[in-house]
Amino acid sequence: VSVTFARGFSAAGVAAGLKPSGALDLALLVGAAGTTATGLFTTNKVVAAPVQLARARLDAGHGTAVLVNSGQANAATGPRGAGDALRATDAAAALLHRDSDDVVPCSTGVIGEPIHMPELLAALPGLVDSVAPDGDDDFAHAILTTDTVSKQATATAGQFRVGGAAKGVGMISPNLATMLAFVTLDAAVARGHLSRLADDVLRDTFNSISVDGCTSTNDTVVVLASAAAGGSPVTPGTTAWDGLATAVGAVGESLARQLIHDGEGATHVLLIDVVGAADENDARAVAKAVADSPLVKTAAFGEDANPGRILQAAGAAGVDLDADRLDVWIGDVQVAAGGTIDPDSFAHGGSAARAKPAMAAPEVSIRLRVGDGPGAARVLGCDLSYDYVKINGEYTT
Amino acid sequence: VSVTFARGFSAAGVAAGLKPSGALDLALLVGAAGTTATGLFTTNKVVAAPVQLARARLDAGHGTAVLVNSGQANAATGPRGAGDALRATDAAAALLHRDSDDVVPCSTGVIGEPIHMPELLAALPGLVDSVAPDGDDDFAHAILTTDTVSKQATATAGQFRVGGAAKGVGMISPNLATMLAFVTLDAAVARGHLSRLADDVLRDTFNSISVDGCTSTNDTVVVLASAAAGGSPVTPGTTAWDGLATAVGAVGESLARQLIHDGEGATHVLLIDVVGAADENDARAVAKAVADSPLVKTAAFGEDANPGRILQAAGAAGVDLDADRLDVWIGDVQVAAGGTIDPDSFAHGGSAARAKPAMAAPEVSIRLRVGDGPGAARVLGCDLSYDYVKINGEYTT
Repeated sequence: VSVTFARGFSAAGVAAGLKPSGALDLALLVGAAGTTATGLFTTNKVVAAPVQLARARLDAGHGTAVLVNSGQANAATGPRGAGDALRATDAAAALLHRDSDDVVPCSTGVIGEPIHMPELLAALPGLVDSVAPDGDDDFAHAILTTDTVSKQATATAGQFRVGGAAKGVGMISPNLATMLAFVTLDAAVARGHLSRLADDVLRDTFNSISVDGCTSTNDTVVVLASAAAGGSPVTPGTTAWDGLATAVGAVGESLARQLIHDGEGATHVLLIDVVGAADENDARAVAKAVADSPLVKTAAFGEDANPGRILQAAGAAGVDLDADRLDVWIGDVQVAAGGTIDPDSFAHGGSAARAKPAMAAPEVSIRLRVGDGPGAARVLGCDLSYDYVKINGEYTT
Repeated sequence: VSVTFARGFSAAGVAAGLKPSGALDLALLVGAAGTTATGLFTTNKVVAAPVQLARARLDAGHGTAVLVNSGQANAATGPRGAGDALRATDAAAALLHRDSDDVVPCSTGVIGEPIHMPELLAALPGLVDSVAPDGDDDFAHAILTTDTVSKQATATAGQFRVGGAAKGVGMISPNLATMLAFVTLDAAVARGHLSRLADDVLRDTFNSISVDGCTSTNDTVVVLASAAAGGSPVTPGTTAWDGLATAVGAVGESLARQLIHDGEGATHVLLIDVVGAADENDARAVAKAVADSPLVKTAAFGEDANPGRILQAAGAAGVDLDADRLDVWIGDVQVAAGGTIDPDSFAHGGSAARAKPAMAAPEVSIRLRVGDGPGAARVLGCDLSYDYVKINGEYTT
């Protein structure tokens, strides 16, 4: 159950033939008339055509439906790619009897390969016909690429429902990376307030996960509010707003964790918590440096409680920190204190040995205290395995 | 032939028992009295004890000999580590009949593990006894850790000779990383001028190689000039200076290339050239982003000419660039023009297919033109293979 858990939304997913595998690859999410929408987008300087069009339409206050294709990312495709995004959404809008501006495009797949437009256009009528309130599972599957499972989440806040679906296994990093996420809610929320909600409770969530540190050309989070639950618009500073924000945040958090668990080749999830930094940005930079370090990631794959690699990564984060103040824990075992690793840690029964079970857990908790400052952050990462190399060494252009 | 190619230097390497393997692990390089020295050091905030002591001694104008141990990095070892670095160099200096300040310490190996001091101190007399003009090969081998081959280079400039040795296979990144390099020359060069020479012709060289983007706690480049070739001091602005700079640069370049060829698990070397950037820093940032991208690195391992991943990495470099101006070549084949990948590139005989032989070469040349600016840079990287994961997943703490 995902994007149609919130009332006022219908969805569908079909196999249009965009993927050589024949799997579902074209998805549509349709909100009731009057749905408001907002988006968060990649920070990569190379931005896919659908991202440019989606951002323009959402910024102008439009967007009641989302058309997603997987198989081709429609990135680095030049004027042809921009034209394809326009033609696809024009065709979908005509079939939905909506304005072209109402349809927001998203694409994911191979960079540089143009969308297979004849197949997409031929499949659109069937896609629009199959849109239904129970189409969320097909939608959630049709947006996937190398994902092994779909990512779906729901939450409630009083009479309001929140639903979400996401995709992404690689090119996921803390600057919004090849990841698409769709969050729906059935409260009435003015467009400007919806944008604030996304900034407040979703941006940091999706900026705090990292599979491989690579920021994609296509990352997009779209949030839609249908007002179908009835009631007057929910506004900031009210109890209803706080409840809604908590529910949206919970859906985002769940999707983010599902994404990282399905990270390409991941056998362990890394939960990197940093406290005591000067501010949240410094804390996140240190946490990201540890989460992205190939040496920490391979140590996690080898289930090796290696405090030196954690210190090395923290020290290279580009943050002004005092190495003599660094405390590190793996699970509940302190493996470095005041920047120093216990000299007996490598001996029989030493801290490295005692921390090994925590390093072998499905979720590896690594905590760093870097000083006395108020800055704290958590970044979710994963290990670097043979399968990451295999998947990305063999994924064909 | 390496550090004793330059006259006025003797060297040795012995097996002190610091490495469990019993391989050579303690090395000494001794310059003639009056030798001048300078150093370049890691930018990591977590700095090993020997780096702190070496920097202090070199900054104070001292340093005629270098004591190197492999097996333990003496990093994150606190006051004990600082004491160990002092005791080791004190003992070596006494045996050499020099001042303690004359001996510069370097360590490489496991972070957090204290140096095995009893073994080191017991081996020092034998090490000093075996110092000889033909000890450079033992020296070059004793400094190695997971390296598979030693790195040695020589060059000449008129009557002057320049030699060098280096180690490092992982934790090598463009901010000077677990890499130790020693360059000797037999010209007379004042200490301040030697420092300038290192800055001018060695800093960029060693900052332009990247195995895994990880900056180490121990990286050090030490340059020593013995004056043993005779003649008056060589000063900037002279023909002799220019010749000497060229020779030192050539030794540095050779060592850097040997390091990257021996990168952990590397099966391909990446030569990333960026031109047209606003300045050299921007060019290097883009080249480093491409060289360090796990997606580019796994594509190289898979010998997959994947222009989308190169564009993605360039776009995420944190540099202000115009995506519509990006041109990319793999070998001699242009795979992206004006930010657009030829739509037929994935078809039979398309650019991706034509670029595949270049992607399969031992040295893969990837060139990017990012605009019309004067900034250009080259970064050397390597691919990300199963063996990188194996080596770093199994390398024990």
